[in-house]
This record gives sequence, C-alpha cells and structure tokens, in this order.
Amino acid sequence: MESEKISYSSSANLGPGYDILSLSHKAFFDKVRIETSNGSEKIMIISENTPLNPEKNTAGLSIMKIMEDKNINEKINIYIEKGIPIGLGLGSSGASSSAAVKAFNELFDLNLSNDEMVYYSMYGEIAAAGSAHPDNVSSGIYGGLTLITSVEPLNVKKIDINYDLNILLIIPEMNMNNKTMYARSLVPKTVDMTDHIKNSEYLSELIYGFLKGDRNSIRYGMNDVIVERARSPMFPYYYAIKEKAIKNNAISACISGAGPTILIFIDEYSDKNNILNDVKNIMSSFKTDYKIIETDIMEGYYE
Amino acid sequence: MESEKISYSSSANLGPGYDILSLSHKAFFDKVRIETSNGSEKIMIISENTPLNPEKNTAGLSIMKIMEDKNINEKINIYIEKGIPIGLGLGSSGASSSAAVKAFNELFDLNLSNDEMVYYSMYGEIAAAGSAHPDNVSSGIYGGLTLITSVEPLNVKKIDINYDLNILLIIPEMNMNNKTMYARSLVPKTVDMTDHIKNSEYLSELIYGFLKGDRNSIRYGMNDVIVERARSPMFPYYYAIKEKAIKNNAISACISGAGPTILIFIDEYSDKNNILNDVKNIMSSFKTDYKIIETDIMEGYYE
Repeated sequence: MESEKISYSSSANLGPGYDILSLSHKAFFDKVRIETSNGSEKIMIISENTPLNPEKNTAGLSIMKIMEDKNINEKINIYIEKGIPIGLGLGSSGASSSAAVKAFNELFDLNLSNDEMVYYSMYGEIAAAGSAHPDNVSSGIYGGLTLITSVEPLNVKKIDINYDLNILLIIPEMNMNNKTMYARSLVPKTVDMTDHIKNSEYLSELIYGFLKGDRNSIRYGMNDVIVERARSPMFPYYYAIKEKAIKNNAISACISGAGPTILIFIDEYSDKNNILNDVKNIMSSFKTDYKIIETDIMEGYYE
Repeated sequence: MESEKISYSSSANLGPGYDILSLSHKAFFDKVRIETSNGSEKIMIISENTPLNPEKNTAGLSIMKIMEDKNINEKINIYIEKGIPIGLGLGSSGASSSAAVKAFNELFDLNLSNDEMVYYSMYGEIAAAGSAHPDNVSSGIYGGLTLITSVEPLNVKKIDINYDLNILLIIPEMNMNNKTMYARSLVPKTVDMTDHIKNSEYLSELIYGFLKGDRNSIRYGMNDVIVERARSPMFPYYYAIKEKAIKNNAISACISGAGPTILIFIDEYSDKNNILNDVKNIMSSFKTDYKIIETDIMEGYYE
C-alpha cells in the first residue's frame, strides 16, 4: 500500500500579513510517497537532503504525531523528494510535512479535514524552526491565499483572489546561516501606534482588494511598515527592486516569507521586460546572483 | 435659493478598526438647511445647540473652507437641527458638517465627488475635536460601512455588509467633560507585537466576514485588544454587556466611537429579550441610566 502527494512552494508573511497571510504558487513542489513496510524501523525516511531521523524531519515529526493521536502502529517508509529550495523564504519545510500528511491521510483512509491536516502539518515546523506556525502549511493544504486568524484553536480562511495576476520570484542565490532565526530577531517587540494603524490600513485594503478584485487596492495594501521594514537591512536590494517594479507597473512586491526571495505581482499592464532588466542591474550592483521564476498562484489542492 | 440635507449617526472605531472603520445607522440624524441671504453676515448660523460662531461650528468651518477654495462670496444662512446627541460616540459633530457640505454642494451646483465632500466635512471635525479625521464624516457621505485607509490623500472604500444584521445601541445617559480628549489620552503610544498581530487577525477576518457575509467571521473579527481594551476602564459595564450579549447569541458588540455608547450586532438567532434584560441588570448594578435604540444600518445617501 502506498500513497504519493505533492505540496507547492508558498510565500508567507504576504505584504502586511506577517504571521497571517500565505500564498501558494506553482514555482516548486516537494513530493512525498509513503508506503507500509515490513522493515525494522517504525518510520524510515528515505531522502537525499532532509534529516533521516524522523524526529528531526519535518515530514517525520508530523507523521509521528498523527500515528500517536490515531493509534496507528504500522511500519512505514517515507520517501521525500525535495523540489523546493531550502532557506529562501519559499515554504520548503512546511511543504514536505503537508505533502506527507496528505499522503498519510490517504494511505490510512483517515478522512482528516483540511484544518486537521494543517494542524498535523504544523508539527513539522517544530522540526524546522523550533516552533509551530501554520502559515506555510496552510498553503500546502488549502492552496491559494490563506488567512490564519488563530492558531489555537486553528482558524484558516481561504481568501479568493478575484484578480488575474502572475508572480515573479526573484530568488537570490545565497545561503544565510540561521537566516530564519536572524530574521525573527529583527521583528520588533513593540510597534508604534501610528505604524500599527498604518499596517491596519494596508491589511484591510489588501483583503478588500483580493476579494473585490481591485488592482489599486491590492497595490496599496501590499505594504508593511513594521516587520518588512525591520527586516529590510537583510535584503538591501528589496526596496530598490520594489520601486523599479512599481515604476514599470507591476502591481506590487514584497519579501517572500523570511526572505531573501522577493515576490512581485504582475499583470497584463506590467512591463515585464523592463522589470527583469532593472532587477538585473540592481542585483548586479549588489553583487548578488539570483534566479527568476515566473509562476502562477497554485489554487487549492483539495478543493 | 435653499437646500436641505440630513446626515445620520455613526459608530467609528468599529471593532478592531480604530481610526479606519465607521458604520452609519438610522438611529438619529442631523438636518442642515442652507439658504442664500441678503443679511449682513457672510455666514450666519441659526441653531439652538451648536456654536453660532462659524469658526467654532462644525458645519460652519466646513462651509468656510469650501467657500474659500471655490471662491464663493454669496452670503448664506445655515440652519442646523441637531438630532444626534452630542458626546456619546455617535458621530454627532461629523454629521452636522457632512449634512452642511451636502446641502452646500447642491445649493451651488458644485458637483463635488464623495471624496471631496468627505474632505470638506472633515474640516468640521477640527472645530469639534481639534484635529481632522474622516471616519465619522465618511459615514455621513457614503453611508453604510466605510474603510478609510489613508487621510492624505484621502482613500475611502465602501465595504458591503453581505449579512442581514440589526443594531442595538446602549446609550448611557452621562455627560463626561472632555470625554473625547480623555479617551484619546488612553490610546497607547506603542503596541506589543503580539497585540498587533492579534488585532491584525481580527481586522482581516472582520473585513472578510462582512464581504463574504460570514456570521462567525464577523463575530470573531469584532474584537480589539488594543484601543478598546485601553479605554474599557472608562466604560466598566462594557465587557459585562458584551459577554452576556454573546451568550444570548448576539453576533458581537463593541464600543461606539470613543464611547460611552455600546453597539451590539444582532440577527434572527439572537435572543433580544434576554439581551435587553441582561443590559438592564448590568446598567442597574453600575447605577447608570441609559437608553436603548434598535436600529438598522443606513445604506448610502448618495448611491
């Protein structure tokens, strides 16, 4: 018996949505296959580039938690094929666990709800980041844009994006040690009331813009004077790229997850060639190699 | 030549929407009539209970600003009939100025846009509160629920409420000197990051709930751990009322504007009689007289 599932890359912390908005896209995916086994180990991980100890593996930890809760004692092998690059703000760790949870759910006919799958996938994030947060994994389960407004109890809403947009991902080729931990350390502990109000304005107009399909509102809403501004010294090319992208009529741009990847929303009105050219010049001036991926929103996997 | 317009009461700071969300309702209205005159004064205010000096009158100040900008030199009389009680968090000051602006716009055929009328109405708030803010006046011009995401330049969005709800206003009979100033002094200068995130969760789900007509999301979103919590000592009956209202299946409740009025959203599932009874007991235990008004949302005046 076996089951195989994929989960796609995603951009958490979308615009002003630190910790609450995450967007799934088709740029990359992880593939997880789970099979029942007669081997000696309860859970055997087979993978080239993720930890083989289940307790240190994002997929392994999620599956251990389900097996415990559901009292499942069969032995299994988990094959993990990572397609999403690690450490670039693309939701890599969450994708392995959500793909594993989907495969396990199917293999053992558990009929888990989307929210239950998000809940178990979240356990994988403890292996990767030391704490459980459902933003990226909610993308892997729901697809599209997810709004997480409570972790305990879990509350995930799917936000329809009623506007036809595409995505450019600017992916710097860098390997920052402890990037996530450093990015977290830059998040301020307190926020000025004026900044809180400003971000509330952005966030409410962004939600409005996606649901109403209002381009100007999406553009206006995709700003963040709190977390993104605090982290911007990590990504010195970011504001330059955003400014040029908007000049060339991109809808807007933001840092993807905890960076270093930059996400740019474009549409038919955007001058993509000019944007790509400007990105090239900016990244060259920062002596930073990068890749560009043009991609689409990955709409729901389970819907 | 004359023109007469009315503007309704409103509840600013709706739920987590401090400074950005305002809701118009049919509970009360102000009526303003403007006529051209041959008298000796440029602007004569005729009113029983608002200042007669145009520079200290919310309607007068708004009209002075339009006349200056549009170079209008006719003499006018402004008759103000106040129906909205003053100082109870019901948008009274803003209503006189927005009604005046609408009347003046019609009288002189100015064809002002909604946003231009909000802009001029805002000047009235300087007379009343010492600073210009467009939340209540945007209700008077647009009606319904307005989202203000920028003051300069002005950016107002109408948020459709796609759920059938009614409003109970619990209006304490109190006269607090300098209430607005005191309420402002309680607004914290900084916000904990955890509270900022919590309020972002409420706000985004509230916008989602109104647009999608999702009762549970409206209920969840109508919370505020920042400004409302900081001001709650001013209104010691508030949390008790909210708790009982929700127990009796009200949708939710919040402080209206800067208080002391409490707004409760109810619908067909709410046990109104129990709510009214609980309010009675709570207000009696706080030795506070009050009025209850049951009302509806006032949908747009100009739409």
